[in-house]
Amino acid sequence: MVMSLNITIRLKLANQPGTLVRVLAVIADEGGNLGSIDLVSAAPDHMVRELMVWFYERENLAGLINALEEIPGVQIVQVADRVFTKHLGGKIEIKAKREIHGREDLALVYTPGVARVSQAIEGDPEMAYRLTMKGNFVAIVTDGSAVLGLGNIGPQAALPVMEGKAILFKKFAGIDALPLCLNVHGTKEIIDTVIACAPTFGGINLEDIAAPQCFAIEEELSRLLDIPVFHDDQHGTAIVTVAGLLNALRVVDKRIDKVKIVVSGAGAAGVAISKMLLSTGARDIVVCDRKGAIVRDDMPEIDSKKWLARHTNERCVHGSLQEVIEGADVIIGVSGPGLLHRDDILRMKEKPIIFALANPEPEVDPKEILDVAGVIATGRSDFPNQINNVLAFPGVFRGALDCHARMINDEMCLAAAHVLADLVTPEQLSPEYIIPSVFNEDVCPAVSRAVQQAARNTGVSRRYLYEENEQGKLLNFMAT
Amino acid sequence: MVMSLNITIRLKLANQPGTLVRVLAVIADEGGNLGSIDLVSAAPDHMVRELMVWFYERENLAGLINALEEIPGVQIVQVADRVFTKHLGGKIEIKAKREIHGREDLALVYTPGVARVSQAIEGDPEMAYRLTMKGNFVAIVTDGSAVLGLGNIGPQAALPVMEGKAILFKKFAGIDALPLCLNVHGTKEIIDTVIACAPTFGGINLEDIAAPQCFAIEEELSRLLDIPVFHDDQHGTAIVTVAGLLNALRVVDKRIDKVKIVVSGAGAAGVAISKMLLSTGARDIVVCDRKGAIVRDDMPEIDSKKWLARHTNERCVHGSLQEVIEGADVIIGVSGPGLLHRDDILRMKEKPIIFALANPEPEVDPKEILDVAGVIATGRSDFPNQINNVLAFPGVFRGALDCHARMINDEMCLAAAHVLADLVTPEQLSPEYIIPSVFNEDVCPAVSRAVQQAARNTGVSRRYLYEENEQGKLLNFMAT
Repeated sequence: MVMSLNITIRLKLANQPGTLVRVLAVIADEGGNLGSIDLVSAAPDHMVRELMVWFYERENLAGLINALEEIPGVQIVQVADRVFTKHLGGKIEIKAKREIHGREDLALVYTPGVARVSQAIEGDPEMAYRLTMKGNFVAIVTDGSAVLGLGNIGPQAALPVMEGKAILFKKFAGIDALPLCLNVHGTKEIIDTVIACAPTFGGINLEDIAAPQCFAIEEELSRLLDIPVFHDDQHGTAIVTVAGLLNALRVVDKRIDKVKIVVSGAGAAGVAISKMLLSTGARDIVVCDRKGAIVRDDMPEIDSKKWLARHTNERCVHGSLQEVIEGADVIIGVSGPGLLHRDDILRMKEKPIIFALANPEPEVDPKEILDVAGVIATGRSDFPNQINNVLAFPGVFRGALDCHARMINDEMCLAAAHVLADLVTPEQLSPEYIIPSVFNEDVCPAVSRAVQQAARNTGVSRRYLYEENEQGKLLNFMAT
Repeated sequence: MVMSLNITIRLKLANQPGTLVRVLAVIADEGGNLGSIDLVSAAPDHMVRELMVWFYERENLAGLINALEEIPGVQIVQVADRVFTKHLGGKIEIKAKREIHGREDLALVYTPGVARVSQAIEGDPEMAYRLTMKGNFVAIVTDGSAVLGLGNIGPQAALPVMEGKAILFKKFAGIDALPLCLNVHGTKEIIDTVIACAPTFGGINLEDIAAPQCFAIEEELSRLLDIPVFHDDQHGTAIVTVAGLLNALRVVDKRIDKVKIVVSGAGAAGVAISKMLLSTGARDIVVCDRKGAIVRDDMPEIDSKKWLARHTNERCVHGSLQEVIEGADVIIGVSGPGLLHRDDILRMKEKPIIFALANPEPEVDPKEILDVAGVIATGRSDFPNQINNVLAFPGVFRGALDCHARMINDEMCLAAAHVLADLVTPEQLSPEYIIPSVFNEDVCPAVSRAVQQAARNTGVSRRYLYEENEQGKLLNFMAT
């Protein structure tokens, strides 16, 4: 479990020997994990101190507060949940890149000067990429129907998550990303809204939209828009998972075209991972949903699962996840907590690869299987081998925007997966290091370069168009 | 005419006496107006200098470049249009308000911590105003159908104008505003799109949407959304115009309920100005469109003009603008360039008030009528009494957001107009000073306070709701 509750407690402590020691003892007793202790102010008879404490559960906090109140000489001044204080006033803002100090500035960045820029774009829409925000702005679009592990919490409650994502876009790729939390849920309505809003943006990142609608929404938007559209829950997850798997297979010395792979979960991530595995050369994949193996002689109703039935499970295996995992080399879980146990893993082939990516609780507890697994990866930061989308989406969009790609295609995603895998050198590769850290600064530039190369190879880059026109527009916008 | 073409010319000048003098002479001859001269670099035989030059027309620039090339010892290194260089890469960006330095920060502003914030908002949507960007974010919505004087240039070409507006929102009111340029034009489609996007935003500023669609769009959105909706071309213009008129009437010592007012133009601005004038006590208003006076015994087809026919022109005056202006005390032009001349103004009552607001060219050239007008106002920064919306919209939205208003109603707009007028003290008031400068820092706070007061008086402020709930949520988000 991640300690996700981080509390700041401000206490007024009487100047009696042993008061602070008692406070610290109470914190430990109540399951708190002490971070920093700051002195806020000191007086002859008392001190005000601020303690940062981590907890697993909110219940622990209530217990702590009661216990603290009973210590003589201790007065609670304030209790603040640091997650909430970090969210006060929101997490992103708009910043002007040009300052306005007087009328001359106004005339340059607003009327009347701006009219000439508008006319230039009217004459050549491509100029919008150079003369407006569009070239570096991505919309993070959600309807709030499948947010984190919280489910359908709606667009308003999804907003803090999307703001967090916007911070990641900026930090890791320098991309300006804006949450667009939509108050519509139908496939057609979401598509229509995104198309209507597209002129402002250079790319669309779909996020936390429930399956199976997410598939049709992404496909249609990719077809109808001339800017990159990327459903991160599908392709971001697939890129990082496949990158990790390629390296995990190197660790256990198995070949992707020879291994038996079971995928648990047939939602956005499960479908995208299975498709990318097929493109990477995997041949024996069985995908399970809640009812068990998806198989073509018992055709499912949903289109995305029909596709899986037709393209995976060549051997027509039937049965539950626990049944089909027998004899498998790889299990990739993108489903739910605790579906598998040590017994199930023991029935897999030798040196099994376990990707238990359900968050925050994996499909199988890594601690149960440390001695029997070849490689273990999870979605969590407190175990080795974290499969985290932030390794993919910043570089993918940086690349797509920089080469001015009209879409993000399978080849670009595959190139991202391969370069991500290759960032771990043969010397570094080990069962506990199959994927770079999220804070590795080489990741975004490397992914971006690979994505741009793939875009050029597949003819979806448009950068050259722009460069050809550039000379003729010297007087219009040549920069000093 | 405003000198709107601002050029930077980088020249390599031979080190011969008189070279720079010849350059400056040529600039003056070709109609250029010299700004700064910078020395970029110096060598024994030449200097590189950068000259900033203002022009009226692009044709002058071509002439200048030809003439400069003919001067011996002068080489043109680079010519840059400063409007375009100021637009390179766009004018706004997203800035993170929280930094991410490591895993602990990630856990606070993104997963897993953010999940608790989402759940808090799911439980109480009102919390979104405190814990997300929503409370300070305004969407600047346009379909690009009536941009500046350029007409229907479409959403992509409108983007630089909206980015400029976003800078104004930030500079004058600290509001984060984001362009949303829509690729749909039907009334219903625009309404549907804005409603779909509303969860992200605390307010909607409609901008440069053509009449008459703009009226229905604003009305419906105001009715359907619980956040402030404001069509700046209507109400922003009306607020500043009425404020200016109230003071102009003081200057010429006439009463609003006694004067004959002619409004030229029945688009977004003309309709909103006429409505607000009626609310302010004006009784004799004749509105003209291209066909002449709008009158109830010749009922127009468009709803907004029908409204005008029913509520203005009590005397049922017929005729062209030039005819009905005879004997009027006030003419407010929000129409087109050069519709009126000195002769027309001479046929008005004594000390006529002339608001010639068409931009960049007014309905009548102020220089023609300086000696016969009581007060003249225009939309331009190079004459006294500039009627500029930036005096209204920042404060109106600041007020509406701060009191968490569910709408912006007529009372709030009227309060803004009155406070704006009152910012000019009786001592300051003169024919050349009827409205504060756009750079007057008292304007936004004063307008904001007046708007909040009006919101509370009319029961559309929701701030108190939030404050009542605050105590009970101490543990959730109390700030240090």
